[in-house]
Amino acid sequence: MIFRQLFEPLSSTYTYLLGCEDTGQAVLIDPVIVTVERDLAAVSRLGLTLAYSLDTHIHADHITAALELKKAVGSKIAAPAFDRLPCADLGIEEGTPFQLGSIRLQALHTPGHTAGHFAYLLGECVFSGDVLLIDGCGRTDFQDGDADALYRSVHDKLFTLPDDYLVYPAHDYQHRHVSSIGQEKDRNPRLGAGRTLAQFRDIMANLNLPYPTFIDYAVPGNRLCGVCPDHLPGDLEKYCRHMTDSPQG
Amino acid sequence: MIFRQLFEPLSSTYTYLLGCEDTGQAVLIDPVIVTVERDLAAVSRLGLTLAYSLDTHIHADHITAALELKKAVGSKIAAPAFDRLPCADLGIEEGTPFQLGSIRLQALHTPGHTAGHFAYLLGECVFSGDVLLIDGCGRTDFQDGDADALYRSVHDKLFTLPDDYLVYPAHDYQHRHVSSIGQEKDRNPRLGAGRTLAQFRDIMANLNLPYPTFIDYAVPGNRLCGVCPDHLPGDLEKYCRHMTDSPQG
Repeated sequence: MIFRQLFEPLSSTYTYLLGCEDTGQAVLIDPVIVTVERDLAAVSRLGLTLAYSLDTHIHADHITAALELKKAVGSKIAAPAFDRLPCADLGIEEGTPFQLGSIRLQALHTPGHTAGHFAYLLGECVFSGDVLLIDGCGRTDFQDGDADALYRSVHDKLFTLPDDYLVYPAHDYQHRHVSSIGQEKDRNPRLGAGRTLAQFRDIMANLNLPYPTFIDYAVPGNRLCGVCPDHLPGDLEKYCRHMTDSPQG
Repeated sequence: MIFRQLFEPLSSTYTYLLGCEDTGQAVLIDPVIVTVERDLAAVSRLGLTLAYSLDTHIHADHITAALELKKAVGSKIAAPAFDRLPCADLGIEEGTPFQLGSIRLQALHTPGHTAGHFAYLLGECVFSGDVLLIDGCGRTDFQDGDADALYRSVHDKLFTLPDDYLVYPAHDYQHRHVSSIGQEKDRNPRLGAGRTLAQFRDIMANLNLPYPTFIDYAVPGNRLCGVCPDHLPGDLEKYCRHMTDSPQG
């Protein structure tokens, strides 16, 4: 199986490219609209055809590339069924693996960052989305976020995996690329290292984070599988620059 | 293939257990004398037989378990040929893979921490020993250590591997378990992030580290594949406690 970790620096998002050598098909997990060309070039360079995009959740910090990829190469759109997106071709549900050739992703409903968040397990790797980051986790104060639910998702569905399973998060803001379940259990300052649910609730209730700059545009845009608004104020335009710089997408 | 990362907390050493499911044979990379029983129990619990121990280099901070493992279960001792250890059954050389069933380790001579240091490449994972640690590297001021050689080893033999290859180091002092080549290239403060050889030389020349507590006992003990001295002063006894607590080892 082919694996590439790709990085989008504006939102510090990791997009994962998985390719099946037998069928020549690829899937992109959490592709970002501003890096559509780069990701399609990576797929093509590997001799693959993009069959699917697959999001872990409705993002608030960037616009998914799902719809642009579909327009460009006809790839289908997979997204958590929980979010009932009319634009999705396939609704992901727990208990029904996502299968593409030899690529088999087990879907784990892991609410807390958003209510419909999914993590995907591939062999001994977990693509943890925003529910578990390296030494951290996604915020829980928007999109039906819920600290109790996030703690339970991580402790019941991820920390029960073997310690050596690798953790590939959807973001990192310090250029770390990979962790393991054991590492996060040992030293995640919010969720590991013996932190109780009560301590986690307290940590998340006192983060004092600013209102997320792009959320009011990203969430409705992502509910349409990746549509940029017609007019974005000031420097927010950069989150959709792909659309203006490369209208042919 | 079976993989386990095991941790010895006194010297913060990672021992790696690799098992071949077809032959039922296992190899332990960098086993530590104080955790002989634990490691043998892990091998046994997995239904495996220990065929080999394999060291990355002559350690200065702990005693290898190689000889004790041989005494206990008859496992053979593999070590870099460069170090000419009469007690070794197999001398590892660059260009000749270490093969045990389906386990195939490519041996990379990576001097700098010690002159005879080897890293081992297994598929898309590198066991980097002390030549490349997460956000760091081994010291270069003993055992024919050489900052220029270490920089060249890392840049020429490890940083030329694909970015997504995993880095499993021989130590971590902050409970990090795993990194990747891309991560170390991006942010290793000594060797990555654009650091030049001149900058690296300067960093290593100004670490002002204390004389390593155990080196005068560990190096001669490890040149015998893992022998504890008869009498250790004061609290150094703990580095060989296995020998006194469990004489039947």
